[in-house]
Amino acid sequence: MQVSETPCSRLSVVLVATRNPLNIGAAARAMVNFGFTDLRLVNPYDLAFREARSAVGAAGLLRRAQVFKNLADAIADCALVVGTTSVGHRELQHPLRRLELGGRLIRRQLPSGRVALLFGSEKFGLANEDLAHCHWLMRIPTVEQNLSMNLGQAVAVCLYELARNARAAIMRPERSKPASAAENEQITRMLVEVLERSGYINPVTAASTELKIRRLIRRLRLAAHDAPLLLGMLRQVLWKLADQPK
Amino acid sequence: MQVSETPCSRLSVVLVATRNPLNIGAAARAMVNFGFTDLRLVNPYDLAFREARSAVGAAGLLRRAQVFKNLADAIADCALVVGTTSVGHRELQHPLRRLELGGRLIRRQLPSGRVALLFGSEKFGLANEDLAHCHWLMRIPTVEQNLSMNLGQAVAVCLYELARNARAAIMRPERSKPASAAENEQITRMLVEVLERSGYINPVTAASTELKIRRLIRRLRLAAHDAPLLLGMLRQVLWKLADQPK
Repeated sequence: MQVSETPCSRLSVVLVATRNPLNIGAAARAMVNFGFTDLRLVNPYDLAFREARSAVGAAGLLRRAQVFKNLADAIADCALVVGTTSVGHRELQHPLRRLELGGRLIRRQLPSGRVALLFGSEKFGLANEDLAHCHWLMRIPTVEQNLSMNLGQAVAVCLYELARNARAAIMRPERSKPASAAENEQITRMLVEVLERSGYINPVTAASTELKIRRLIRRLRLAAHDAPLLLGMLRQVLWKLADQPK
Repeated sequence: MQVSETPCSRLSVVLVATRNPLNIGAAARAMVNFGFTDLRLVNPYDLAFREARSAVGAAGLLRRAQVFKNLADAIADCALVVGTTSVGHRELQHPLRRLELGGRLIRRQLPSGRVALLFGSEKFGLANEDLAHCHWLMRIPTVEQNLSMNLGQAVAVCLYELARNARAAIMRPERSKPASAAENEQITRMLVEVLERSGYINPVTAASTELKIRRLIRRLRLAAHDAPLLLGMLRQVLWKLADQPK
């Protein structure tokens, strides 16, 4: 199946020397979740990965995954090669960028050329020989330098950063329609009546109590669809109270 | 151990009816990765979770995790309760926010009160009874509505969004110190000499070729620490060429 060229289809997730087939499955599942299609494997330890149980819903993507004997072949058609690292102790010869910035640079590259995003083995990460193929490195901003991320989770977080839409954070959420002033006032009056009949309102301070209740109802910022619900409850209580001896 | 109060310590990750102990371990590992400390479990299917192998480095956090019989008790001390959902088919009675926006709202709440972030079971997500406890719902912006995310990956992505620093995307990366103009010129001259001796440069067009080479070297934007490396190579080639019969 020929996949049409989109920015997402131009990102290749390259797993180098992955040990656990479950992690390959998890990476594939995250790719499907975020709309990426091109998975490449360099020397996986276990070729049983295509049956990985953790790959719920990603069987097609795993079937199309390409397997390579060395990294140079796997990234031959890529214009930008980015390695992921948890840093740790080794001395870095490469520029190291946090995911927030690195993701932005990758998104900028994708419309014009293929980008390879490399993940190393669970135990050792990327070897120095792999890092030498990279233009720069990227790290997920975790707090514990001594505890690297699980591979499947690291792939998911990186792909989320590439897929996230910064504008979605500033758009106003769809709010449910607020109740109108008339509805708020109807509820206020009915609640006041219920509280009068219940003996909650002291006739001496009735005016100020009514103001308190009016302000309370406005603070609730009721939704339009909640108004009839509340009115129905109040009406029923009022009806029951009318039944009681005063 | 009393954990000091920080915004991160005020977020409670609440896993409701989780089936697979490995997923609890994976959630705990992601929490440690991103600096969160308070894990709460409501009716986990398998109480063996404290031994979850997937919880590399998160044993302490798992030991301190609290187990509750019902959701109301688990969230009793929380000022904001947010449910996660993959939406799917059910009709939503709650405001639904994308993670980019929801994460921002949660970060804003954390300094002043505890926030519960709820994740439902792997198979069914949060039940309607659980959703009724939520102030609003949040969804990870995945593309395939039919394929929900793996639980451990979903937790990792949400916590990354809470931990990410938008400013890190606009900060200039630390660049390695660029080579000086003198170093670039020294490399240019030595390369020109090598190419002259090799017969690459045609004497008739030598001037324009030299300009081309000068521009090429500037486009490379060499790092200062790469200059001696290149000069050493060129010097060696030059020495070898001097040895050859012209």
